[in-house]
Amino acid sequence: MRKIVECVPNFSEGRRTEVVGEIVAAIKATQGAVLLDRESDADHNRSVITFVAPPERVVDAALAGARKAAELIDLNHHSGEHPRMGAVDVVPFIPISGVTMEECIALARQCGERMWRELGIPIYLYEKAATRLERENLATVRKGQFEGIRDDIARNPSRLPDYGEARVHPTAGITAVGARPPLIAYNINLGTSDITIATKIARAVRHQNGGLRFVKALGFELKDRGIVQVSMNMVNFEGTPLFRVFEMVRSEAERYGVPVIGSEIVGLVPQQALNAVADFYLRLEGFGEEQILERRLEAALETSTE
Amino acid sequence: MRKIVECVPNFSEGRRTEVVGEIVAAIKATQGAVLLDRESDADHNRSVITFVAPPERVVDAALAGARKAAELIDLNHHSGEHPRMGAVDVVPFIPISGVTMEECIALARQCGERMWRELGIPIYLYEKAATRLERENLATVRKGQFEGIRDDIARNPSRLPDYGEARVHPTAGITAVGARPPLIAYNINLGTSDITIATKIARAVRHQNGGLRFVKALGFELKDRGIVQVSMNMVNFEGTPLFRVFEMVRSEAERYGVPVIGSEIVGLVPQQALNAVADFYLRLEGFGEEQILERRLEAALETSTE
Repeated sequence: MRKIVECVPNFSEGRRTEVVGEIVAAIKATQGAVLLDRESDADHNRSVITFVAPPERVVDAALAGARKAAELIDLNHHSGEHPRMGAVDVVPFIPISGVTMEECIALARQCGERMWRELGIPIYLYEKAATRLERENLATVRKGQFEGIRDDIARNPSRLPDYGEARVHPTAGITAVGARPPLIAYNINLGTSDITIATKIARAVRHQNGGLRFVKALGFELKDRGIVQVSMNMVNFEGTPLFRVFEMVRSEAERYGVPVIGSEIVGLVPQQALNAVADFYLRLEGFGEEQILERRLEAALETSTE
Repeated sequence: MRKIVECVPNFSEGRRTEVVGEIVAAIKATQGAVLLDRESDADHNRSVITFVAPPERVVDAALAGARKAAELIDLNHHSGEHPRMGAVDVVPFIPISGVTMEECIALARQCGERMWRELGIPIYLYEKAATRLERENLATVRKGQFEGIRDDIARNPSRLPDYGEARVHPTAGITAVGARPPLIAYNINLGTSDITIATKIARAVRHQNGGLRFVKALGFELKDRGIVQVSMNMVNFEGTPLFRVFEMVRSEAERYGVPVIGSEIVGLVPQQALNAVADFYLRLEGFGEEQILERRLEAALETSTE
């Protein structure tokens, strides 16, 4: 299986398209890096770049983007709705295929160490790469944002970065580098216009209130369709698979006599997440992904070129 | 999307492993051809070779295998349980990705024409490539087998081949070349030891008795597990998808108070067949395969190398 790591760096610039363009160009110029998506938001003043690369190239590509961002973005002149602490705000490494979470944690550490050594940007390790429990949660790490951390870091030992000294980079701030599973944005639509039902179901399924461990959920109205939606982030689809969430939402909705009328995957989904759904509903016995024709072909092509 | 055609030629030799080895070697030696599977059966005295190749190479590879088979197999000295009429008995072309059925029909005709011209083997076109309604069914085409066709072909106008004259090749016989969708071998296991229930359900779902158009089905006992099975060949998974068969078998079994305890896919399955299952059970709205991360990556890699 081809080894693929995804990297989704967030940059604190969503308005000057030429700056974002230069960052993207620097990433794409790295051998082996393939751009999958780029999204800039002017209100957030932030850009999210999605690329994949083989493990031996992914850190180089992330560094290339970070170097350009540190050159062109000055946090002293940055404002936007989204919380941020660095020109390169977060750099998550995500295992996609043929790669373990442990390898992605190692890549995050390697990236963090090089960002400090080569660019002088101090680094917090977060999520799966965190070295302290309280740094697993990005919101906790970023608390106070650029300005707050800049003023607090020298006198607060709990703020000491994983790489670097107790001061932020004067213009590029400080960056969180980490590893996490792929995230799936998944919404389930209910045949009612009653928002209180979507909200109650969101509370039932989400981790925060006692629900499924890897689910974040909110209730929303889809006014133009006259229905409501349970909108979710599935932060670990192996731990909490799509079908389990679907069945739980269906069961909760039934309690109100409300049908599930559809669901939607927003953006990208790993193939494995869909295969798990087919496996569950068909009650497959002893099925292996090597039985998928495309996988077998890929494996055969790899063998034949070795 | 990479253009991939599957070809599954059946050869009338399942005992002399060196002969099968030479045929397989000839196919593999064709640039672009990738062997996925090979199975030989001594009782049937027949080998089934599965390979894939891009459309512009697949006929060359099939020809290479056919040429070697015509050289090494003499039907006058062949016996086995499986019906056969040629050293190369059947050559189906199957669209896998980025290729239409029409293209596979064109490939089948090109292959048939070349087998006659280059190897002197007459050709019947069958299934989707058939030029006459009665040749869609392979069993009809092969009726009488090598010996029967050899003796009948000159005096029976309905036997006239699509390519070639009204006589079989003296040793290699005559070959059926065609195009068909991928086939999925799919079994559903029932929580009962009563074989009559599996047989009744098989009759309900299969085309032959009024069931689903692209399903062939039989009831079997799995004695060691003390259960029974509805064993199926899904001959067109786009026309009759896996989930529809599963739901129909479940509904029929319920009528006898019998649960579906599992199902199994035997051999290979196209990824698209599983994606359709996930789409159905999650009631996905507006989902496209370009949302699958691996597909997006493949598309991005193709664009970047163009």
